Amino acid sequence: MAGGTVAPHRLVLLRHGESVWNAQDLFAGWADVPLTPRGRAQARRCGAQLADAGLLPDIAHTSLLKRAIDTADLALDAADRHWVDVRRSWRLNERHYGALQGRKRSQVRDEVGTEQLQRWRRSWDVAPPAVDVSTRYRDSEARYRQLGIPVPATESLKDVYARLVPYWENTVVPDLLSGRTVLVVAHGNVLRALVKHIDDLADDHVGRLKIPTGAPLHFRLDGDLRPLAPGGSYLSSPESRR
Amino acid sequence: MAGGTVAPHRLVLLRHGESVWNAQDLFAGWADVPLTPRGRAQARRCGAQLADAGLLPDIAHTSLLKRAIDTADLALDAADRHWVDVRRSWRLNERHYGALQGRKRSQVRDEVGTEQLQRWRRSWDVAPPAVDVSTRYRDSEARYRQLGIPVPATESLKDVYARLVPYWENTVVPDLLSGRTVLVVAHGNVLRALVKHIDDLADDHVGRLKIPTGAPLHFRLDGDLRPLAPGGSYLSSPESRR
Repeated sequence: MAGGTVAPHRLVLLRHGESVWNAQDLFAGWADVPLTPRGRAQARRCGAQLADAGLLPDIAHTSLLKRAIDTADLALDAADRHWVDVRRSWRLNERHYGALQGRKRSQVRDEVGTEQLQRWRRSWDVAPPAVDVSTRYRDSEARYRQLGIPVPATESLKDVYARLVPYWENTVVPDLLSGRTVLVVAHGNVLRALVKHIDDLADDHVGRLKIPTGAPLHFRLDGDLRPLAPGGSYLSSPESRR
Repeated sequence: MAGGTVAPHRLVLLRHGESVWNAQDLFAGWADVPLTPRGRAQARRCGAQLADAGLLPDIAHTSLLKRAIDTADLALDAADRHWVDVRRSWRLNERHYGALQGRKRSQVRDEVGTEQLQRWRRSWDVAPPAVDVSTRYRDSEARYRQLGIPVPATESLKDVYARLVPYWENTVVPDLLSGRTVLVVAHGNVLRALVKHIDDLADDHVGRLKIPTGAPLHFRLDGDLRPLAPGGSYLSSPESRR
């Protein structure tokens, strides 16, 4: 591809800061919940880390969810890069958590047991129970119907991977190959799927992959977009690692 | 052009809310000053007005200046349209005010007289004195040099018009013709130049044209992008009109 000889390409992945539902231990998925004040501070700190590391984004990609959008805006502002172009896509949205959306993690664990919960959360191709079409969280999804986006009733990580990769190939990769430093601000599960793709990880490895909040993850990629160091490197000490 | 038969096209122009330098009566131009709390509240109110009017942007265009970027973010968020794509361009930046940037309006008036000040502010092809290259405001312009954008030393409204129109033709017009409701968040002088273009106003009429802050200006455009009602219509009672 054009520009493929210019390496290394610079990619920064950033999981959104703490959301109101993270703080309440609720599954969010496609529900559009805002950041907490702590999450906003995390986002600003990530922007300062990017500036300190000289990793100044030339373009940002976000999901259509407020917690990622606001994280990107706050981080870019803190890095004095508020003026870069921003692209958004539902393909960067968090995994749709089906009937778990809006439910408390600890309550679900009490009902179904730790093992089943882990299967829903960490397996490759097991989706949580589908959402009931009458659930109130579908109200916030008018935006997707208007855009002609098929709203899933639930998603496995495999489903997320399948909808993510076309966006990566068609939209993010051209930005990387043009020599730009690319910031992707998204969600825990979609970033796990993306790291699987970049690092070419086996399906059963992805369950062990965790992306912490508040820690920019930097990949340097060669001309074929293979990472110079698999797993990338965090710009700060995150709360948890793989 | 494709889509030209679908009319009316929907365009909303929005001047940024009150900035810190507006409040201090300083010329800002390309200096990148933030909004005041009042300016942030104005921006949110404009978003609510857009939602009330059913004028929901499908895409936003902003300058590279923080006061326009933050106005767009706050207005879109208030209209529940935080998730739309955003394009940015230096071609939507405020007029470069040359040596007047950072100076107090009333002091300049005392020095040069009301008539000269009006000539600099309101005439079509008279630019203020050029900025001295050693001025501190050039420090904030590293972003433009990096992007290969020639930073002007001063601009007349005619200069603004000349750099604005290519962006309108190449970037905004295709969005309009694709059927999207387009929001342009920019600055007093660049919006004056844009209204001159849309309404096909004579050069000497532009001096009388004022774009108030805090008031979305709505144009409905026919298939040839001529306004159905010249001058457009404001969604609220602005503080000043033409």
